[in-house]
Amino acid sequence: MHPTIERARQAGLAALQPSARDLEYGLALHRRCLVIDGYGFGAMGAADPARLRALAAAGASERELADAREDGSMTRWASDAAQFQEAAEAWEAAGVDCVWINAGEESNEIGTLFKRLGRRTYACDLRPEFIRRAACPEDIPAAKDAGRRCLTMTANGVPLPQRWESVEDELSFIRPLFQLGVRMAHLVYQRSNPIGQGCGEPHDAGLTDFGRAVVAAMNRVGMIVDVAHAGMQTSLDAARCSDRPMVASHTVCHGLHPHFRGKNDAVMRAIADTGGCIGICAIGRFLGGTCDLRAFLDHVQYALNLVGPDHVSIGTDVAYAIAPPPSAAAAGSPLPARPPQRPHWRSLWPEGPAVTPAPGADLSLAWTNVPLITVGMVQRGLSDEVIAKVMGGNCLRVAKALWDGREP
Amino acid sequence: MHPTIERARQAGLAALQPSARDLEYGLALHRRCLVIDGYGFGAMGAADPARLRALAAAGASERELADAREDGSMTRWASDAAQFQEAAEAWEAAGVDCVWINAGEESNEIGTLFKRLGRRTYACDLRPEFIRRAACPEDIPAAKDAGRRCLTMTANGVPLPQRWESVEDELSFIRPLFQLGVRMAHLVYQRSNPIGQGCGEPHDAGLTDFGRAVVAAMNRVGMIVDVAHAGMQTSLDAARCSDRPMVASHTVCHGLHPHFRGKNDAVMRAIADTGGCIGICAIGRFLGGTCDLRAFLDHVQYALNLVGPDHVSIGTDVAYAIAPPPSAAAAGSPLPARPPQRPHWRSLWPEGPAVTPAPGADLSLAWTNVPLITVGMVQRGLSDEVIAKVMGGNCLRVAKALWDGREP
Repeated sequence: MHPTIERARQAGLAALQPSARDLEYGLALHRRCLVIDGYGFGAMGAADPARLRALAAAGASERELADAREDGSMTRWASDAAQFQEAAEAWEAAGVDCVWINAGEESNEIGTLFKRLGRRTYACDLRPEFIRRAACPEDIPAAKDAGRRCLTMTANGVPLPQRWESVEDELSFIRPLFQLGVRMAHLVYQRSNPIGQGCGEPHDAGLTDFGRAVVAAMNRVGMIVDVAHAGMQTSLDAARCSDRPMVASHTVCHGLHPHFRGKNDAVMRAIADTGGCIGICAIGRFLGGTCDLRAFLDHVQYALNLVGPDHVSIGTDVAYAIAPPPSAAAAGSPLPARPPQRPHWRSLWPEGPAVTPAPGADLSLAWTNVPLITVGMVQRGLSDEVIAKVMGGNCLRVAKALWDGREP
Repeated sequence: MHPTIERARQAGLAALQPSARDLEYGLALHRRCLVIDGYGFGAMGAADPARLRALAAAGASERELADAREDGSMTRWASDAAQFQEAAEAWEAAGVDCVWINAGEESNEIGTLFKRLGRRTYACDLRPEFIRRAACPEDIPAAKDAGRRCLTMTANGVPLPQRWESVEDELSFIRPLFQLGVRMAHLVYQRSNPIGQGCGEPHDAGLTDFGRAVVAAMNRVGMIVDVAHAGMQTSLDAARCSDRPMVASHTVCHGLHPHFRGKNDAVMRAIADTGGCIGICAIGRFLGGTCDLRAFLDHVQYALNLVGPDHVSIGTDVAYAIAPPPSAAAAGSPLPARPPQRPHWRSLWPEGPAVTPAPGADLSLAWTNVPLITVGMVQRGLSDEVIAKVMGGNCLRVAKALWDGREP
């Protein structure tokens, strides 16, 4: 086991302290389950430092450098032999069959959304024996059966041509993005947009008139509506007007820890009423409490108690980050110092409640510890059936409902 | 055999009048060859007339209607059971293993290029047992071996963000489009653009300074440069500055028939010097002479004589059009009369030389008659080895050169 993975595993075990029986049973159950990380990143690579340095020396703009870094992080785990080996170890340790993966930057601009999707698609095309695009829900169990993994593409924004000619014209890129593979998209991300209001804003009047049209179009096309980063009222309105199952793919229970990225009981119930899922994320400061794997399990249990076993899933929001080779690390930062940069548009992150994480909390929530979520649920006495739903069954059911109900 | 396919087959046979021996031998050889249509459309479906009528009644813009028509033509052959059956018959009759398919509208605008690619990708995702995206060259023979077909995605334009900040910034979407699957793109289409001049223009000073940067970027990324619709000097300049094999994917020999869509001997030689291909297209008025399958073969022979067997391919530029069901045809045009429309930007088509097509000329050039190209080459005494190169081997070699030489 790679030292990074091993270190995280020890932190997770220290947090849970499972009995030998629960550990063995949980790990075996995890291998049997169809495991879907309902929002995440999988293994992420590292850009070639020499390439970044050469770009900077040639006067590359901040945008070019950001592009090169992101391209490296999203493709080099597949194109570079050493990184691929570590990525394969991470996937093996995580025991995840499919990640509903971030494949579209926080934006409504079509060109922006398109780049990340290209990078994810290309990585799959480079390693078809290891991982493939999941174009339809049936591809997910088929990948597991074939000993492969797969990625379901998702976007952090809805594509809008921004011609502002007619509502229908603004909706006209949702289907092409779906056709290119994107099966789920955020309505809003932290800030407000013409669709609704973000969870980082000081107020939230709810879904706009246009937002209702977006939800209807996504329902029709077959793209899952995701309110993970939407404001509370916007989330509630979206759930009430969606006629297909929808999700908060990576969130926490606001009733347990009042973080603005969480969803309150009313929103969670409304999402469950659509037939959808509340996905619990593995970000310590959103979880609160011990901010570790135990806190994650507390949120799973809270959600199960509130909305029942058919409406809770996981969406880790966490990547396994492949470290650059020691030689690159020794060479220091690949880029020369640059003047300070403005915060990115997406960075509207009010301070959340103060937290006091337990020692090793972040490490315990590493992506490669996903099997310990199953172990933790075993420890808490949840049935195999409930665990299988949380670990993937519920996401698969939602995906099937959207796929089967899509327009021709 | 579907009546449409049968009618075309009879027209093709009437044009060629092969001996029983040549016909049998040629058809068997065709089945053995790896057949790549180096630029084409495959089978195209028909939009649902009821959907078009409903859109028009709701006040849909011309753009929405054009989108719906195109979406129908590019996806309904896969999503509609009856259309799929006819499409499968057409592919079977054509005996084509891979089409390098038009999957990007004539434009440099990213959103525009993106839509058609979505439609083509989706059609493959709907029928994975029948047809798949060819992400890398090896996927093409693998598809034939598995009894499937495949599509290599191509675009009729290079994506440009059109921010005009720096040359490098304008080049920054070539790689994402490649990563999404596009393996070949037109530098220009009929009209001139910042890259070079179109074959429809009254003058052609050649490739621009920026155009040289585009060719270099495509070489680096691994996307095949296509000058099918470029002006003569622009084509020549591109060939001289490309350090990878490049193509005129669907053209004719200007030396045989002086149509402006053809390439003269100097351009053909320059393309061959890159290690690339001249693809002969199946459009009667570009071919001249009898404007039928015999004229097509005359161009193949002219090209073989000029540049040798390693640099000639086929790029039919022809679709098999699935007819709407009789009930839809009986109902008349699906759309109410609208005021006359401006010609589209792409429509810069000067009049070509006058032609006098032989009877049945167009029918003889139907896409489903691709096997008769092989038969015709047998009749003309070409060796099996040369025929295999023209029918697919040369395209595959070019694809491999670009794929193997691409940046990481």
